[in-house]
Amino acid sequence: MSLFRIERKAAGSEGRLGVLSTSHGHINTPAFVAVATRGTVRAADPCDLHAMGVQALIGNTYHLVLRPGAELLGEQGGLHGFSGWSGPWMTDSGGYQVFSLGAGKEHGVGKVASVFPGDKNPRPRGRSLVRLSERGAVFRSVLDGSWVTFTPESVIRAQRLLGADIVLPLDECTSPWHSREYTAQACARTHRWAERALAAWNEGGSQGPNPKQALYGIVQGGAYEDLRRRSARFIADLGFPGVAVGGSLGRSKEEMFQVLRWVSDELPDELPRHLLGIGSLEDVVEAVRQGMDTFDCAAPTRMARNGTLLVLTERRGRINIRSARFRRDREPVDPNCDCPVCSYHSRAFLHHLLRAGELTYYRLATLHNLRTMVRFMGSIRELLAAGRSPDRKELLPT
Amino acid sequence: MSLFRIERKAAGSEGRLGVLSTSHGHINTPAFVAVATRGTVRAADPCDLHAMGVQALIGNTYHLVLRPGAELLGEQGGLHGFSGWSGPWMTDSGGYQVFSLGAGKEHGVGKVASVFPGDKNPRPRGRSLVRLSERGAVFRSVLDGSWVTFTPESVIRAQRLLGADIVLPLDECTSPWHSREYTAQACARTHRWAERALAAWNEGGSQGPNPKQALYGIVQGGAYEDLRRRSARFIADLGFPGVAVGGSLGRSKEEMFQVLRWVSDELPDELPRHLLGIGSLEDVVEAVRQGMDTFDCAAPTRMARNGTLLVLTERRGRINIRSARFRRDREPVDPNCDCPVCSYHSRAFLHHLLRAGELTYYRLATLHNLRTMVRFMGSIRELLAAGRSPDRKELLPT
Repeated sequence: MSLFRIERKAAGSEGRLGVLSTSHGHINTPAFVAVATRGTVRAADPCDLHAMGVQALIGNTYHLVLRPGAELLGEQGGLHGFSGWSGPWMTDSGGYQVFSLGAGKEHGVGKVASVFPGDKNPRPRGRSLVRLSERGAVFRSVLDGSWVTFTPESVIRAQRLLGADIVLPLDECTSPWHSREYTAQACARTHRWAERALAAWNEGGSQGPNPKQALYGIVQGGAYEDLRRRSARFIADLGFPGVAVGGSLGRSKEEMFQVLRWVSDELPDELPRHLLGIGSLEDVVEAVRQGMDTFDCAAPTRMARNGTLLVLTERRGRINIRSARFRRDREPVDPNCDCPVCSYHSRAFLHHLLRAGELTYYRLATLHNLRTMVRFMGSIRELLAAGRSPDRKELLPT
Repeated sequence: MSLFRIERKAAGSEGRLGVLSTSHGHINTPAFVAVATRGTVRAADPCDLHAMGVQALIGNTYHLVLRPGAELLGEQGGLHGFSGWSGPWMTDSGGYQVFSLGAGKEHGVGKVASVFPGDKNPRPRGRSLVRLSERGAVFRSVLDGSWVTFTPESVIRAQRLLGADIVLPLDECTSPWHSREYTAQACARTHRWAERALAAWNEGGSQGPNPKQALYGIVQGGAYEDLRRRSARFIADLGFPGVAVGGSLGRSKEEMFQVLRWVSDELPDELPRHLLGIGSLEDVVEAVRQGMDTFDCAAPTRMARNGTLLVLTERRGRINIRSARFRRDREPVDPNCDCPVCSYHSRAFLHHLLRAGELTYYRLATLHNLRTMVRFMGSIRELLAAGRSPDRKELLPT
């Protein structure tokens, strides 16, 4: 059984309709993978996720190794056995934490520098909590401040125990503020780490609860064309069954989409492509057009908790339910949405729950935003199934 | 249609099996009424509550008048229309807040003084935020510190707008540390307020979303036999269709049950009896034996959020899921429980969620404790249906 099958390609873009097959179920792509950093999507449970149509979750090796621990998870049947989510799981390697607790802190940035519009220079957020060497990364634990070592080999061992269906090797993300020289060095190190991860993977056999895991490779190279193209070729040549695109995606949306174009261009069609940490509605449309298949992003669930609810027919595709204009609004959050929140509750009630700080709010908002992401991905797949490319103007209000 | 029908009386106690009929559904009694202070049970939604078998909710007039406001609730179809819970609603009057923000603060106590074992004297918790007069109570708003006036009449008007099926008049709760003299004065005032509430009720007709509300009377009198007996007779004579037992229940469990015995003794059988704010498993058994029909208590849901899960087979009927002994425990919280948490999740997973501070925890724990209360009340009703009195030794471990 091959991991990925392309069902149809779109006209006018690199977009493709596909199916990722894991031993815990199929994922119809393009798909949104919900973020379950510590083994659960915040405020939701597995029954909720099934009901919303979520297809797959992504956990985080760094956080899960710190708590409850890889050994414990292995004993408990891995993430599938422990969490109650028996559908497909992915796990990120902790590479992003190398970045977010390290250079990301020093440079004060995320994946795209322009999240702080107008910034021309790094805005430090604090001192690095990471020491990097050829051997691996040494982190400060966010729990107790103790030092924790991650190597390409230890991350593979941990992910065997976590048992996700799709796992990722340790990589080094770079910041949009890193120089070309540093980015090239980091990219070369990520490549050496990918080889070590693959060696550990191939020798280790199955020591965990899930004998049918797939190890994706990660493409790095920042927003530099030659580095990205070279990285894509290098990773594809190593024979990974799938590829993730990580690291800096430049200083603007335009740069981000260009990076995806370069990578797509170099990768063989048949490899499934995961875009790490990107998931706004407009970004997803464009990334699908550049040939990406799966996406994970904490934004839809985090925005929900902050009061931002996705409503495709509203300006910018969202409303802020905390706004006083919803105080007496008896309409559902989104009249076109089929989620239980929109079926049973008014905007006024959600506004009240959020204002009152009621825990009930966080789950309801999370369910609505997840359902909206799922419906949105469904609309994209419908277009692709008809051989059409998803179009931002058609799918989203201006 | 009469509000309350007794189906069967138990041998050997005052226990009775009954049905409370509201225009939003029946409540099989004895029943636990889940606390939804601000229009929602914390961390759960109406679908959850239906699924757990919860029969009725109780909101709080004081909190709901402050936010979102009685007028707004009236416009939104009352609590039924606003909250999505279309089953029976009760609303407490705010009388308990007169106490908990007033004398309760000054005396540092709740309903039973012995919640702080060994206390021989009041332990002040702060200054009173309430000014009481014959006219009513003036409160500090917990939201913005502004002064809010509650009178017996305004509380009736507000509850017409809230539209609960069973509503309560403003009363003055006393503390177990209040003197006999003060308790007698407060009780007399509560009686005058009950008459004013009834007058406002009878003249007002229906100005709210629910034309079929029932106004219960509240029996006060602290732990003084003559005061309690007189109050029960007085309230019953006013012709309320049901009665709630409020205020101080003494300084020990024994005193509490004695108070219930006195009240039961004086009340006509046919009046349904609600015990305000009491709901531990052992208290419920004994209160049913003393002839109580319904109970509300925040403890099962609050305990859930603090890590205390009800497990009838465990010592003291509970476990603390935060305890390290559950870190690797693959068993369900309660192997005898049919709730979704016990069906799909392990103690180890809940332990992890609570330790990690995941929002998902709070709902799962709440659902389990609610389901356990519901199942427990079901066991009590089964015994009563067989003509037997519920017995603590039979229903609970020692």
